[in-house]
Amino acid sequence: MKIQTKKAFFDEPLYLESGRILQPFEVMYETYGELNSDKSNVIIITHALSGSHHAAGTYDGDRKAGWWDDFIGDGKAVDTTKYFVICMNNIGSCFGSTSPQSINPATQEPYRLRFPVLTISDIVKAQIRVLKSLDINNVFAVIGGSMGGMQALCYAIEYPTFAKQIITLATTAYTRPWAIAYNKVVVEAIKNDPEFKDGYYDPKDIEKNGLNGLAIGRMAGHISYLSPHSMDDKFGRRYVNNDGLYELFGRFEVERYLEYNGYRFPHNFDPLSYLYIVKTMNIFNASRGSDTLSQSLAKIKSKLHLISFSGDRLFMPCEMEEIRDTMIENGQQELVTYKMIQSDYGHDAFLVEVDKFEDYIKDILDE
Amino acid sequence: MKIQTKKAFFDEPLYLESGRILQPFEVMYETYGELNSDKSNVIIITHALSGSHHAAGTYDGDRKAGWWDDFIGDGKAVDTTKYFVICMNNIGSCFGSTSPQSINPATQEPYRLRFPVLTISDIVKAQIRVLKSLDINNVFAVIGGSMGGMQALCYAIEYPTFAKQIITLATTAYTRPWAIAYNKVVVEAIKNDPEFKDGYYDPKDIEKNGLNGLAIGRMAGHISYLSPHSMDDKFGRRYVNNDGLYELFGRFEVERYLEYNGYRFPHNFDPLSYLYIVKTMNIFNASRGSDTLSQSLAKIKSKLHLISFSGDRLFMPCEMEEIRDTMIENGQQELVTYKMIQSDYGHDAFLVEVDKFEDYIKDILDE
Repeated sequence: MKIQTKKAFFDEPLYLESGRILQPFEVMYETYGELNSDKSNVIIITHALSGSHHAAGTYDGDRKAGWWDDFIGDGKAVDTTKYFVICMNNIGSCFGSTSPQSINPATQEPYRLRFPVLTISDIVKAQIRVLKSLDINNVFAVIGGSMGGMQALCYAIEYPTFAKQIITLATTAYTRPWAIAYNKVVVEAIKNDPEFKDGYYDPKDIEKNGLNGLAIGRMAGHISYLSPHSMDDKFGRRYVNNDGLYELFGRFEVERYLEYNGYRFPHNFDPLSYLYIVKTMNIFNASRGSDTLSQSLAKIKSKLHLISFSGDRLFMPCEMEEIRDTMIENGQQELVTYKMIQSDYGHDAFLVEVDKFEDYIKDILDE
Repeated sequence: MKIQTKKAFFDEPLYLESGRILQPFEVMYETYGELNSDKSNVIIITHALSGSHHAAGTYDGDRKAGWWDDFIGDGKAVDTTKYFVICMNNIGSCFGSTSPQSINPATQEPYRLRFPVLTISDIVKAQIRVLKSLDINNVFAVIGGSMGGMQALCYAIEYPTFAKQIITLATTAYTRPWAIAYNKVVVEAIKNDPEFKDGYYDPKDIEKNGLNGLAIGRMAGHISYLSPHSMDDKFGRRYVNNDGLYELFGRFEVERYLEYNGYRFPHNFDPLSYLYIVKTMNIFNASRGSDTLSQSLAKIKSKLHLISFSGDRLFMPCEMEEIRDTMIENGQQELVTYKMIQSDYGHDAFLVEVDKFEDYIKDILDE
């Protein structure tokens, strides 16, 4: 599989939904496979909160492959021998695209908390600019899960003729209060951490020392990514080093899991980016710009495939069913398909249980 | 209704499950109604994590009544014209009973993090001591929800002839990893707050200024006390001060709720107590001391009434069903009843939806 990692730079302004402007801006992106002659084999992969443009393949010297490597590659469901796959790092995120740590041309200082509030629409708008710069004016498919699914839905509504197929997994048309509540924990935890310094921290310090506030908030996030069932399976009531002496004083395996994943996270993720990204999710509302969700979805012309996971506690199947039902009421039944994957894993199933939906998506793409 | 608030003091040691000793120790308690001549009308109410001995009635000058006032009082389900009701502040808690802020006689300093790890069994043991000091050697009923239900279960297993009726609501025989995970967020958030000072804070400072770590952890806790449905009902995606200008920049009502309940909490609750109490819940396991849950439950001689709430996401109906099923397998079907209350509220239903189970419990008590 041919992997290329690149950065697109734009000197022209990006007009944001908030009324503010991002200028200049840049977007890191990665491509897999080869663009065919009539440019009809492009698949866009949109990433979730903590993801990046590195969706597949393994960099030299890295132990870990890209975040959706089970799903994208030669001979895999998103077959890179057939498709030219592009994954772009969302603006606002911290893997090379313009973010709160980028230099604000007005001050020659990092934006920090003066970075503009971004929306999912803004993120997609920047992606469209990258694609246009590559002379790609429409694509075969857009595929994304969770916050990536919000982007996919945004493509479907705001760029109705851009993609032939839109595949969204484990996502929603608007973020519900419980998801906002989990995000609230991380926002307050970051803001109150003295080492956050109202955003005036040195990113190198965080990379080296971590940031407890983000770590703790991330732990709360992990609860929302799993399910009671998957936690029972993974951890039960087992203790770390269980030799029977730990009944009262030991550390539970679930505690170790949260510590490991929580405290490790800020070494690899910028806290300001995290704040801006959860904000995009909180304020995502596919019906913004229309009077109703129905009117908004009525704009869709691509084939929209909705895939939910029965055990998803963050973006629940009923949220995707509302999209399907609304489109059917709109008379768009030929444009929408819905499948609920049986899974007890929880929200993260779209990342870890690829085997449960890869054939289904392969069939959609092969259709 | 006659309310009396008292403190019981014990100079003799309390031998704890950990092997450590608490000496002296004291327990705040409150009574409602009058003890009858043959002492056959005693009902023990056990309280949950953030509760206190103040279960019912309103103190002079207070706006808010006790935490289960809808349920306990003259003519209410727990009728204080008939029953003599006792609610004791759990040891470890911060409402007057011996706690991490009590003076350690060995050092003449507050115990702080040298306070012994407590278990639910220890808490109940201290309660039994209070009751014995009142010459109450058995009771008509024990009623408790959540962590109070763990105590009720502990009465049933460890003091099989003590209570005629045991009524447990929204609880479990052993804490599952998702509940431990929510507790982990608060533990890490408290420990990492510099104002916590490894427990060497001045409680007056916390009372005055709060403690962000506990506030943030409490926010995560609140997510576990509600349900998606109740959050949708309470908050939806509504903004605070919604005049249409807040679409991108406003604060969601769910955020305000978490801020209010999170940041207010440490002004009224001691962080060290919180750490010790969540520990009792994490390590609660009704089968400890036996080889299996079945053996443990086989000790029960009281009538055990299990009440779950269909929308409880913290201690789920299946957890109480396991207790019922195990007792039936043990041939104890005549000792156990089970009822699932239909409720979308979430875990806190046992506190806020009293109207859904008060008649049911009244019937149990009147039987």
